[in-house]
Amino acid sequence: MTRELVSGGQHIHAPDDLNRLLQDIYDEAMTITSGKVADYIPALAEVNPDYCALTLATLDGEVFNVGDTKEHFSIQSVSKIFGLMLAMERLGDDLWQRVKMEPSGQAFNSIVQLEWEQGIPRNPMINAGAILVSDVLVSHYSASKNAVLSLVRSLCGNDKIYADHDVHLSEKEHGHRNAALAHLMKSFDNIESDVDELLDHYFWQCAITMTGENLARSFTFLANDGVCPFSKKEIMSKRDSQRINALLSTSGMYDQSGEFAFTVGVPAKSGVGGGIVAIVPDFGVISAWSPRLNDYGNSARGMFMVRELANRLGLSVY
Amino acid sequence: MTRELVSGGQHIHAPDDLNRLLQDIYDEAMTITSGKVADYIPALAEVNPDYCALTLATLDGEVFNVGDTKEHFSIQSVSKIFGLMLAMERLGDDLWQRVKMEPSGQAFNSIVQLEWEQGIPRNPMINAGAILVSDVLVSHYSASKNAVLSLVRSLCGNDKIYADHDVHLSEKEHGHRNAALAHLMKSFDNIESDVDELLDHYFWQCAITMTGENLARSFTFLANDGVCPFSKKEIMSKRDSQRINALLSTSGMYDQSGEFAFTVGVPAKSGVGGGIVAIVPDFGVISAWSPRLNDYGNSARGMFMVRELANRLGLSVY
Amino acid sequence: MTRELVSGGQHIHAPDDLNRLLQDIYDEAMTITSGKVADYIPALAEVNPDYCALTLATLDGEVFNVGDTKEHFSIQSVSKIFGLMLAMERLGDDLWQRVKMEPSGQAFNSIVQLEWEQGIPRNPMINAGAILVSDVLVSHYSASKNAVLSLVRSLCGNDKIYADHDVHLSEKEHGHRNAALAHLMKSFDNIESDVDELLDHYFWQCAITMTGENLARSFTFLANDGVCPFSKKEIMSKRDSQRINALLSTSGMYDQSGEFAFTVGVPAKSGVGGGIVAIVPDFGVISAWSPRLNDYGNSARGMFMVRELANRLGLSVY
Amino acid sequence: MTRELVSGGQHIHAPDDLNRLLQDIYDEAMTITSGKVADYIPALAEVNPDYCALTLATLDGEVFNVGDTKEHFSIQSVSKIFGLMLAMERLGDDLWQRVKMEPSGQAFNSIVQLEWEQGIPRNPMINAGAILVSDVLVSHYSASKNAVLSLVRSLCGNDKIYADHDVHLSEKEHGHRNAALAHLMKSFDNIESDVDELLDHYFWQCAITMTGENLARSFTFLANDGVCPFSKKEIMSKRDSQRINALLSTSGMYDQSGEFAFTVGVPAKSGVGGGIVAIVPDFGVISAWSPRLNDYGNSARGMFMVRELANRLGLSVY
Repeated sequence: MTRELVSGGQHIHAPDDLNRLLQDIYDEAMTITSGKVADYIPALAEVNPDYCALTLATLDGEVFNVGDTKEHFSIQSVSKIFGLMLAMERLGDDLWQRVKMEPSGQAFNSIVQLEWEQGIPRNPMINAGAILVSDVLVSHYSASKNAVLSLVRSLCGNDKIYADHDVHLSEKEHGHRNAALAHLMKSFDNIESDVDELLDHYFWQCAITMTGENLARSFTFLANDGVCPFSKKEIMSKRDSQRINALLSTSGMYDQSGEFAFTVGVPAKSGVGGGIVAIVPDFGVISAWSPRLNDYGNSARGMFMVRELANRLGLSVY
Repeated sequence: MTRELVSGGQHIHAPDDLNRLLQDIYDEAMTITSGKVADYIPALAEVNPDYCALTLATLDGEVFNVGDTKEHFSIQSVSKIFGLMLAMERLGDDLWQRVKMEPSGQAFNSIVQLEWEQGIPRNPMINAGAILVSDVLVSHYSASKNAVLSLVRSLCGNDKIYADHDVHLSEKEHGHRNAALAHLMKSFDNIESDVDELLDHYFWQCAITMTGENLARSFTFLANDGVCPFSKKEIMSKRDSQRINALLSTSGMYDQSGEFAFTVGVPAKSGVGGGIVAIVPDFGVISAWSPRLNDYGNSARGMFMVRELANRLGLSVY
Repeated sequence: MTRELVSGGQHIHAPDDLNRLLQDIYDEAMTITSGKVADYIPALAEVNPDYCALTLATLDGEVFNVGDTKEHFSIQSVSKIFGLMLAMERLGDDLWQRVKMEPSGQAFNSIVQLEWEQGIPRNPMINAGAILVSDVLVSHYSASKNAVLSLVRSLCGNDKIYADHDVHLSEKEHGHRNAALAHLMKSFDNIESDVDELLDHYFWQCAITMTGENLARSFTFLANDGVCPFSKKEIMSKRDSQRINALLSTSGMYDQSGEFAFTVGVPAKSGVGGGIVAIVPDFGVISAWSPRLNDYGNSARGMFMVRELANRLGLSVY
Repeated sequence: MTRELVSGGQHIHAPDDLNRLLQDIYDEAMTITSGKVADYIPALAEVNPDYCALTLATLDGEVFNVGDTKEHFSIQSVSKIFGLMLAMERLGDDLWQRVKMEPSGQAFNSIVQLEWEQGIPRNPMINAGAILVSDVLVSHYSASKNAVLSLVRSLCGNDKIYADHDVHLSEKEHGHRNAALAHLMKSFDNIESDVDELLDHYFWQCAITMTGENLARSFTFLANDGVCPFSKKEIMSKRDSQRINALLSTSGMYDQSGEFAFTVGVPAKSGVGGGIVAIVPDFGVISAWSPRLNDYGNSARGMFMVRELANRLGLSVY
């Protein structure tokens, strides 16, 4: 660890201290029963609302787990980061002609701003932006799903990662708002591929499932200037890694991104499956999962756990 | 300095190296002639467009200056930070019932979102939010202008800081859009004081003038967890200092905040007078000033200088 | 009467028939108890909610009254027609450079559209448009209130018409949303006079009070191609009279204008005081008053009475 | 003719007078060369921009034609009336639970308002509303295209009316904005049928072609309280006929509807093919066609011809 950790005035010296801290925070989180499991598709609505998992993966290779960290869940919008990584690699800076990097100030699935700004999504972390990114992948990869899957598997170090078939189909069936976003961008000539095909990719990508531990491990490179601390492989340049963290800081937590920066202070991304991943540069990655969502679509227990851990360890980047 | 600086693969060891770096960047900036001096009030329109200043104030007490760093200019929206500091001190967390902390995704003076969100401004860095903060000051301080002035003077270590009378009057005369924002919030019962009185405070505050060197010095406490590195005085708690930096990161650079995080990666605030202040936690503060503004209302040369300095020294917090 | 009237298959020959029809409709209306008296200012909130009045003034000079037709009430937005008449007279077609004639598709006091359309109100029947008209009056008449009052008195044939002082002051005190509209238009350079002065005129104009019978009489000229059927005086040209009726048809009944055209089919204007005036070209004028308002700000009983009378007599212009 | 016609102070007695009047107006219209042929699909862009046609069909069975009144053109949005007629017949008043009857105050293809108002279109004359009507037809008729075609043929008295295959396919290929509207309404559960199927109906319906003379004849029933003056058949009730006229008055001419009511004063509908049909209750129907469109999407020459004819004959309903 390159940062010196202090919790409640006490220096944290040993893994045992961290284990205890995580367990305490987890126990407190379990008393939270507010929030509502995402129910816009049956496949998500059926998830046990009581699941709860908290993982901390540090850059020196340690992984701390509490709760249901071996259960698979639908990562949903967290997958937007994987798609973005491939699109940045393929298009380079040209990508930013077609999607901006500004916070939206609107709900994640809003169509209003897309009309005002003539089919250019505000950023790749809202649905419209991630749909545009899917268009890039479908247009520039011969097998876009394989490209994503092989990236994700390599980042997790887990060859069994897959996209849940039922969730994929269910998303597709109930995805009319996303279809509206795609068609609107197409009407502004900002979509190249066939709308049905790119939406299929998008819904498939949202349906990727993994464990909380997988999630934390897969993003450690973002805390390490682009280099995976396990494999020592350079996943992306330091510059691009900082750029993705910047995007997550301003736009990663839906319309609660500002509050998250204010109260937690690290780059993070959440999904309506209840997962959250938070990047702590030069330290490690926190992942949290619990299906009950607050009014902004972020996991209620997850928000609590990430905030507490960050605050007690003093992890804010600001 | 608590950070190790590297520029172009070379470690930077001595003040001379930094001086040379600033001068190089300044020289490049001087070749930029795009942008337009703010002309919505005569007092600003008359400023010499060719002024250019760059200052770096580090936490170990060194100050590096290039260009017109002793000229006074109107800090305009940068003053929003001073107002916010006093309002946070006075109201504590109650402040956040009346103004949110989310990026706006709109122009800084937009009224649309204020109607949708029933008179609750998105954050204290857009005009509506700063007007609300002015209402707090006018309601809770017997002499709100004195309170601001004495804070600013103490932060700069300069007892001669003042608000320009002509700019103040000129703002007032041309401030109908800000008056619209104030009256709209009042109609939603989110303003307590008399509208004319609070607007007078707001316009006065925008008219504060100081030098680029003053500007850099006055915000060093934000890079130092709330403690002024010169006087060693605690200006605010570490937590509040990080919170202000978070706000600046998501909302400080008008509708270019996301791009600034993406390409520069530090908390910052700009004003239509052409000033920019950028906070580098654990390192220092950069201030830049040049009156010509880009399409977003940010100083064209200023953006270049801050970005180059941050990139070449590797200052991104992400 | 130039139209042949048929009610329920029966030709209506005599005043007695009309008297009976009005009384029947009034009796049915009295069973309606839904709706809520306007309470945004105390002076309006105190009005007895049970008042109900229905008047029909025909072009052959007959006036049929049922209920509280001699009680004075605040005509509020109905006064927008009087202001518009004077502004059209003074500016001619130049007026339409500063206010459009399109339906707004928004609430009557919405500020959103005014920002999009850069300070040009959609029509003179929404608040922004009527505030702009007030600016014209204040700028072009040495005594704008007198000008309105003398027009109104002459149209009613009643020299005692006045604006209620308490309502006027109360409107002013609670008029911050209207002040926001005025300042926003001023910021777009679409307001010439001093904002406080024009708002004073606007609020005063809204506070004009008269009886239901006065109201019906005062607008008979609009049913008669611009000529007052009582005095035989030409109030305005046939063309301008048709134009005002057109505006009332598309925009007179707040955001229920389309439904009113659909279900009633005559030009009309309502006010939050509970008054409604409906113009039946070549036949006469209906006025209705009852203070309880529906969700759109239109009188609940008033809507019923006007609709029933128009439907039973076959008065739709379409 | 049930109305007494006066033009320029002269009573118009004979068909010859009307013929001359139409020819004069047509000649003046031919000097207008502003406007731009709709070019969003190739099939429309290829139309000769110089075509011009003016027809007046009176209730006593006379038809006056000037110009290219025997040329077929794409009636586009005028077809919305035919769809609406069938949907009103099938659903009765239940239709108005799913689409409102208010003017939109927005461009005809705007998606913003549809999001605010949760998938309920403002009226059946904007695209979203007509797409909803198409959903009703597709859901409630076993062969919705045949139902429309047989209605249209019977109204025109022309068995050869058809929908242009190239235009139909071209609309479909370039119809992504309309697809966005349909999917957005579906996401709000306001669409029952398959989106592709209903869009196919919608685009097909827009592609119906007929001559200017056909157009005028087909709507004479709306000027005659629902009864076709040629066949004497009751097409719809007087009440429904007035209701459609009311809708056309407030919403028939895109975002120029208010101006049209103000300057012309009769119910009317236009299409981007350059056609306009105007209903004059108790008198007859005017149709105009010329492909060059003004900024609102209405035929430039067509607007001139309809306005002049209405003004010179004093046809305003107000």
